[in-house]
Amino acid sequence: MKIAVLGTGMVGRALADRFSTLGHDVVIGTRHVEETLARTEPDWLGNVPFAQWQQTHPAVRLVSFADAGPHGEVVVNATQGASSLAALEAVGSANLAGKVLLDAALPLDMSQGMPPLLSVVNTDSLGEQIQRAFPEARVVKSLNTMLADVMVDPGSIPGHHNVFLAGEDTGAKETVTVLLREFGWPQEAILDLGGIRAARATEMYSPLLFAVSAALETYDFNVAIARK
Amino acid sequence: MKIAVLGTGMVGRALADRFSTLGHDVVIGTRHVEETLARTEPDWLGNVPFAQWQQTHPAVRLVSFADAGPHGEVVVNATQGASSLAALEAVGSANLAGKVLLDAALPLDMSQGMPPLLSVVNTDSLGEQIQRAFPEARVVKSLNTMLADVMVDPGSIPGHHNVFLAGEDTGAKETVTVLLREFGWPQEAILDLGGIRAARATEMYSPLLFAVSAALETYDFNVAIARK
Repeated sequence: MKIAVLGTGMVGRALADRFSTLGHDVVIGTRHVEETLARTEPDWLGNVPFAQWQQTHPAVRLVSFADAGPHGEVVVNATQGASSLAALEAVGSANLAGKVLLDAALPLDMSQGMPPLLSVVNTDSLGEQIQRAFPEARVVKSLNTMLADVMVDPGSIPGHHNVFLAGEDTGAKETVTVLLREFGWPQEAILDLGGIRAARATEMYSPLLFAVSAALETYDFNVAIARK
Repeated sequence: MKIAVLGTGMVGRALADRFSTLGHDVVIGTRHVEETLARTEPDWLGNVPFAQWQQTHPAVRLVSFADAGPHGEVVVNATQGASSLAALEAVGSANLAGKVLLDAALPLDMSQGMPPLLSVVNTDSLGEQIQRAFPEARVVKSLNTMLADVMVDPGSIPGHHNVFLAGEDTGAKETVTVLLREFGWPQEAILDLGGIRAARATEMYSPLLFAVSAALETYDFNVAIARK
């Protein structure tokens, strides 16, 4: 499948790498290709410069957001939440129309330091904003409740744990489910929460994600729903 | 131990019943004792009128908020979040000074119907509001991430699942931990998230609680943190 991953950070790299390893035809989209390749310092999270990452992932091509749009049969939003709408605008609404748009981003507001606040919350969500801004895209909010390593390798956390789906389009959720299964998510771990409004629920879980990670001093965990 | 449970709803009844069964000396506080006893209809959640519940729980005495304060060595806030500060004001700050105040409430805003919104969120929380309003109370936010039946009978959900603590006072969290252990919570299930700010994290989990319950059509579940 032709997949366009938007965002060159930790999440975008992890998803692009995994999709590519699974045999998909993957591009990573960025705002300015030359600027992204010119960086020589690790980012604030300690990730190596993209050009260095690119050397070990030659199958993943770096392209502009505008060029990512036509490539992707599925478009994955792995940009920072604060710049997601601008990134998708650069991809172009015509390039998103009718396509599955997997939104894995969190609307984190780091302006007050850690733990982050949310820039949209309670009465709205980033997932809903994206669906409203691109009404012809088939938005599925998913994967935004865990760190990148867990997204693409759920088996790294033993036992039962969950990944959530929210979106209006049943077929789009089926496509995302197929991709999640390829990542290794068992069918029973994939919990469909209904329409895109449920993006609020999974985005608003993120303060608990950060609080638990601070308490456990690790991000090697995931949320699970334990049932009777 | 002398325990004052504030709130005559589902959570207050479940906690009072369980504490009483465990041998504690329990009162339930309400705004107007006569009004509470005069009700003859089930509440909007289908709970039987309090007077009827009282007949099967004679050891639990119904008192005014003002009378609940002096009784409680531990005070439990099981009121609706929208009226929690008023209820605690009626208990009186002098009656809360130095005491463990277990806050199990959620600041739900039902004005838009289901699922509820939160009336305080993101940059503040009900737990923090209570601690600020009653600085001499030793506030511990806990139990607010599950339905009442699970709070008092964690063994009803098989396997590993969690209950969280947030609060500034280590001794108060130890007291709450003792009570949770009496309810049947294993030590390893009790996850201390640090100071009272983490009340935001557990209160903001509630949209996911409601979304999961809508998807599964049950409240018989709890959140678990699955670890490596």
